[in-house]
Amino acid sequence: MASVSDISVSAAINLLSALAFLLAFAFLRLQPINDRVYFPKWYLKGIRASPRSSGPFMKKFVNLDIRMYLKFWTWMPAALRMPQPELIDHAGLDSAVYIRIYLLGLKIFVPIAILGFAVLVPVNWTGKTLEHIHNLTFSNIDKLSISNVPSGSERLWAHLLMAYTFSFWTCYILYKEFKIVSTLRLHFLASEGRRPDQFTVLVRNVPPDPDESVSEHVEHFFCVNHPDHYLSHQVVYNANKLAKLVEKKKSYQNWHTYYQTKYERNPKKKPTTKTGFWGLWGKTVDAIDYYTAEIEKLSEEEATERERVMSDPKAIIPAAFVSFKSRWGAAVCAQTQQSSNPTIWLTEWAPEPRDVHWANLAIPYVGLTIRRLLVAVVLFFLTFFFMIPIAFVQSMANIEGIEKVLPFLKPLIEAKTVKSVIQGFLPGIALKIFLILLPTILVTMSKIEGFTSLSSLDRRSAAKYHLFLLVNVFFGSIITGAAFEQLQSFLKQAPTEIPKTAGVAIPMKATFFITYIMVDGWAGIAAEILRLVPLVMFHLKNTFLVKTEQDREDAMDPGSINFSTSEPRIQLYFLLGLVYSVVTPILLPFIIIFFAFAYVVFRHQIINVYDQKYESGAKFWPDVHRRIIVALVISQLLLMGLLSTKKAANSTPLLIVLPVLTIWFHLFCKGRFESAFVKFPLQDAMVKDTLERATEPNLNLKAYLHDAYIHPVFKCVQLDKPKAVDDEENNPLVATKRNSRRDSKTGSDGIPETSV
Amino acid sequence: MASVSDISVSAAINLLSALAFLLAFAFLRLQPINDRVYFPKWYLKGIRASPRSSGPFMKKFVNLDIRMYLKFWTWMPAALRMPQPELIDHAGLDSAVYIRIYLLGLKIFVPIAILGFAVLVPVNWTGKTLEHIHNLTFSNIDKLSISNVPSGSERLWAHLLMAYTFSFWTCYILYKEFKIVSTLRLHFLASEGRRPDQFTVLVRNVPPDPDESVSEHVEHFFCVNHPDHYLSHQVVYNANKLAKLVEKKKSYQNWHTYYQTKYERNPKKKPTTKTGFWGLWGKTVDAIDYYTAEIEKLSEEEATERERVMSDPKAIIPAAFVSFKSRWGAAVCAQTQQSSNPTIWLTEWAPEPRDVHWANLAIPYVGLTIRRLLVAVVLFFLTFFFMIPIAFVQSMANIEGIEKVLPFLKPLIEAKTVKSVIQGFLPGIALKIFLILLPTILVTMSKIEGFTSLSSLDRRSAAKYHLFLLVNVFFGSIITGAAFEQLQSFLKQAPTEIPKTAGVAIPMKATFFITYIMVDGWAGIAAEILRLVPLVMFHLKNTFLVKTEQDREDAMDPGSINFSTSEPRIQLYFLLGLVYSVVTPILLPFIIIFFAFAYVVFRHQIINVYDQKYESGAKFWPDVHRRIIVALVISQLLLMGLLSTKKAANSTPLLIVLPVLTIWFHLFCKGRFESAFVKFPLQDAMVKDTLERATEPNLNLKAYLHDAYIHPVFKCVQLDKPKAVDDEENNPLVATKRNSRRDSKTGSDGIPETSV
Repeated sequence: MASVSDISVSAAINLLSALAFLLAFAFLRLQPINDRVYFPKWYLKGIRASPRSSGPFMKKFVNLDIRMYLKFWTWMPAALRMPQPELIDHAGLDSAVYIRIYLLGLKIFVPIAILGFAVLVPVNWTGKTLEHIHNLTFSNIDKLSISNVPSGSERLWAHLLMAYTFSFWTCYILYKEFKIVSTLRLHFLASEGRRPDQFTVLVRNVPPDPDESVSEHVEHFFCVNHPDHYLSHQVVYNANKLAKLVEKKKSYQNWHTYYQTKYERNPKKKPTTKTGFWGLWGKTVDAIDYYTAEIEKLSEEEATERERVMSDPKAIIPAAFVSFKSRWGAAVCAQTQQSSNPTIWLTEWAPEPRDVHWANLAIPYVGLTIRRLLVAVVLFFLTFFFMIPIAFVQSMANIEGIEKVLPFLKPLIEAKTVKSVIQGFLPGIALKIFLILLPTILVTMSKIEGFTSLSSLDRRSAAKYHLFLLVNVFFGSIITGAAFEQLQSFLKQAPTEIPKTAGVAIPMKATFFITYIMVDGWAGIAAEILRLVPLVMFHLKNTFLVKTEQDREDAMDPGSINFSTSEPRIQLYFLLGLVYSVVTPILLPFIIIFFAFAYVVFRHQIINVYDQKYESGAKFWPDVHRRIIVALVISQLLLMGLLSTKKAANSTPLLIVLPVLTIWFHLFCKGRFESAFVKFPLQDAMVKDTLERATEPNLNLKAYLHDAYIHPVFKCVQLDKPKAVDDEENNPLVATKRNSRRDSKTGSDGIPETSV
Repeated sequence: MASVSDISVSAAINLLSALAFLLAFAFLRLQPINDRVYFPKWYLKGIRASPRSSGPFMKKFVNLDIRMYLKFWTWMPAALRMPQPELIDHAGLDSAVYIRIYLLGLKIFVPIAILGFAVLVPVNWTGKTLEHIHNLTFSNIDKLSISNVPSGSERLWAHLLMAYTFSFWTCYILYKEFKIVSTLRLHFLASEGRRPDQFTVLVRNVPPDPDESVSEHVEHFFCVNHPDHYLSHQVVYNANKLAKLVEKKKSYQNWHTYYQTKYERNPKKKPTTKTGFWGLWGKTVDAIDYYTAEIEKLSEEEATERERVMSDPKAIIPAAFVSFKSRWGAAVCAQTQQSSNPTIWLTEWAPEPRDVHWANLAIPYVGLTIRRLLVAVVLFFLTFFFMIPIAFVQSMANIEGIEKVLPFLKPLIEAKTVKSVIQGFLPGIALKIFLILLPTILVTMSKIEGFTSLSSLDRRSAAKYHLFLLVNVFFGSIITGAAFEQLQSFLKQAPTEIPKTAGVAIPMKATFFITYIMVDGWAGIAAEILRLVPLVMFHLKNTFLVKTEQDREDAMDPGSINFSTSEPRIQLYFLLGLVYSVVTPILLPFIIIFFAFAYVVFRHQIINVYDQKYESGAKFWPDVHRRIIVALVISQLLLMGLLSTKKAANSTPLLIVLPVLTIWFHLFCKGRFESAFVKFPLQDAMVKDTLERATEPNLNLKAYLHDAYIHPVFKCVQLDKPKAVDDEENNPLVATKRNSRRDSKTGSDGIPETSV
């Protein structure tokens, strides 16, 4: 076991590396050439323009003002200065609430740490068990933990009391935070401007009709069943293939520009490329000609495909975005069941247009349930048995194996130093690659499950990643051994033995987790602010692709909060903090530093860097809340196991009350707040409708919604064309629209027509 | 272990006692004097009149027609003759679907039994394990069970295959049945006539308002938020005390009539009573005078209380029945969230007026969640630890204890024969009393949980009773010992050990369960049709209380299907059948006889006897479905445990697939069908609305709904008064009603006013 001095050394190293990252950041962010890497948000907002436009040449790239370097730490107070309402306005509610998770960590753990140091540390320190045992090695840290308290001691009542106090404090803060966030969300929804998704409902599983097209069927159904509220609808085209073509064309255009630039800079040598995979194999051709021809070919293909999608009735999938005359009408339709068969005419709130995951709109109900079953089974095996294929790959991936597959590398590998490096490096590489790929795998699994919005994909992936981290990082570290071995031993143990086995191991792992917090937490957050990958990528793009200001705009990669991976990681710190709060309170300061540091860094990032892909209005909060409750219950069960091995058996009935109360508290909060994140109350809808009717009596809503929900590949075209305004709006035809049957033809300008 | 001949004797005894009950029933039902006991349904329908009106005196009481006695079995085909649509019309959907549960048992188990006898019985019979072991006693029944197959035998594949076949067959039948029942329900809802609950929504947790009364607040809220659909509302009075007074008065009136009749028959002796508890203690007084005075006193009290409820604003509870102009409007309001605070303005479909449980309408949200927690904790202790207080009472209730409390009984008890009877009888009596009281206790617990309709109370009580039976009858019989001992041993066992422990015990308990089926099932059902208690009660009442035809009508006790106790009992048979289908198929014929016999008996009862207290439209079916799924999963897990002890370990992975698929199947069915039992689709509402508007364009809906949801104690008064028709209906005032504020005064005729 590590002693306090070991921990201090580790802390110093990690603090230094974090500091190095921060200094590098402080230096790099002041260079005007990096401005678009460290302040892209302001460019996107249009507040900041390219700094190259004026001043001496040198100044455009390097900052020579010494005074600014002395104030390198100013970004921290600057990040904290923006008040929350302004922050919500600037970065959106999702981001503002996301950083509140870190703040929540501080709110929970600072008082707990103070109380823990005031009560538990003295109680543990004077326990004097470990001093009497001379055989065991023990460190000063263990003297501060519950291990130092003798078994069956009266002192354990202090831990029991603190377990109650900490649980109640955590629940109190969670309740308050849930209340604040739901108020923020409701206020955000109430105060935001008119948005297409407020009036629109996504209808899925439109049943096939032999006599009518999907468009007609949708129109008639809603005209009949929502006669006073139905406004219009937008059918959904299966444009997945078209989207792929557009993407491919864009990539080819990038390469074309790259070679063009290369040729212009060095006109003597015509650039060449190879036709094979990634330009590595195949025939050598003139690069510019090759890409020009390819782009032309793709443009043709794209036009044909676009034509096909528009004209083929089979390209229309049985889903539609149905818009209503008022928010009230949309709220009613989204929350009610339409047909007596609950697997057809499924309605839900339409996601924001940019939040829609178009590829998943067409999955039928039975397919959906089968997909969920399969993904659940795969997730189970992925979580518990992922080590088996990796161990298999590791056993394959030895030097002999590489020499067989890639014989030309043989002379290089056989060199002695290289060989030893590879032999030391290889076993870990399969696991490392798997861990890097894991979030992508989980997102893919969530996509297969059939969710229709990017935000729900993110939330579901986060749930999966949380399970993985819980099983493999937390329990995997406490009870050494691969997850499937744990699973096997858990199946063979009595349910009351499991908390005991895990609970006993908890105090011994404190030093390991302290190191983990410093490496993964502190250094990881410092690396986040440095943005090394986007920095390199931007300068590469800037050198080879950028010609116009628009290109430079496109080259910026502001990135965004990656909710699906970063939120489960935060949850790990909540779990560690709650588990160790009673057992080894000395761990808490490390967690507090993590939360404080991460809060400042992410606040800076969302102000200056990130550009969210969608805005879900903090819809993820119930998940955050639930996972902290899970952490709390785990900590209570483990403490129960630990205390029962400490011969404090009469504490078990007292401790079993805690998880019951915690779970009840969760159900209470769920009932009290969760619907604010799922449903849209009619009262609020009515207030907004009434207000809008009063302020904008002549609003042409149909024109406003006309092309809100068009697949993005159709929108590109639309940018070049005059906007089609539906001039039927003030027509006498509209009055009789309920009975009128109109053929759903495709508009000749390439924009799918919105049915009236 | 019992042999086949033991079972035969037991079967014969039970068959004979069942036959005796049936013969008694066949004899008694033909006596005209019992007509109102065995055919009350027809009297309530008004189809049958009292048979006493004509014919010779004797014939009025005793049936002398010999030919009819020879046809004593005709009630069976008669019971089966009525087709289902007519049955639904005659007895309601609840009853018609209830007997389909027995039919479902037949559909599941007849093919399983045939297959089991064709495949498993020969396989087991030729297994020849038990013949080789001469130490053990074994019976012929065990030769037919899986015990006769040697461990690790290839024959076990037959059992595995059958487990798959039986599970898939059960799921297939369950799916079909769920589909049929949901179609029946939708058809029933679509075809039934206009009912107040179709237009009405129950609103609970109306927030307090300092400026307005509850009535005004409700009116303004719904006028604003459902402007085109709101019609009227009915506030709810807290009339619980008044209802108690009315009941007490009715009981006193009964006693008054009883003494009056007694006096008239024997005018020489004036009847007397004692003023104390149940007329056992206290001063002796003239009975008729005493009750006349008491009734007068109660009438006065009742009038005062009625006055107070009407005039005191505090007697109005924060709940209301809100009616809408169309079914569409009500469906929208019932399915949507009204306010951003999801704990106020809670809306749900109003139950039928006779289904409302008035006492629970006023419970606030926080109270509700605390009540649920408490009831859940109590239920846990009741299920697992009920034996502890009973054992305590048993240890108290010995002869010495009785002699101490009731010393005057001493000489009687000390008599030798009496003493031995009491000593043998006493230990069981506490348990017996508890088991008789249990359903009442569970209903009370459900009432405390705060459900607002009698049907939901019944469903929740059934869920609790099912848990109790599962733990204490099924697992309690398999693993001998009290439930809390089982719980303790389960907590100390590995999760994989539990199915093994239980699974091994399964084949050994087959004979016990066969006896149980015959005693509880066969004889119990035969006792049901005899209706001994209502028979005695009717004749007692008829002798002492009945004076007019109306009194005789009131003296009838048709009873009803007691869903909360009888449905969990059926589930026990499903569980036994599914568990033993693979292990000991010889048990299946006994279950099939139970289902067939119960089907005929209950079909007869719902046609001729029962009068349901409410009609929920088969809303209980998802519960029935879920519990059969639970039974299926339990049977699969137990088989897995059993086979793993049979050294067929390689079958475990194959068997673990079954519960996963079964649970998935359940989720699939839930998504596919359950909403038909919870929500009312807008399309169906619109169809009914449109139809009604076309057929009855001049319907005065407000008058129709005027007093639909008045507390029953106010309705009694109303019967004597002319019906108040709201003549404001065709008034110009109505057009401006949204803005008009009217004070909610109490109508002078004692009927609470319906707000416009």
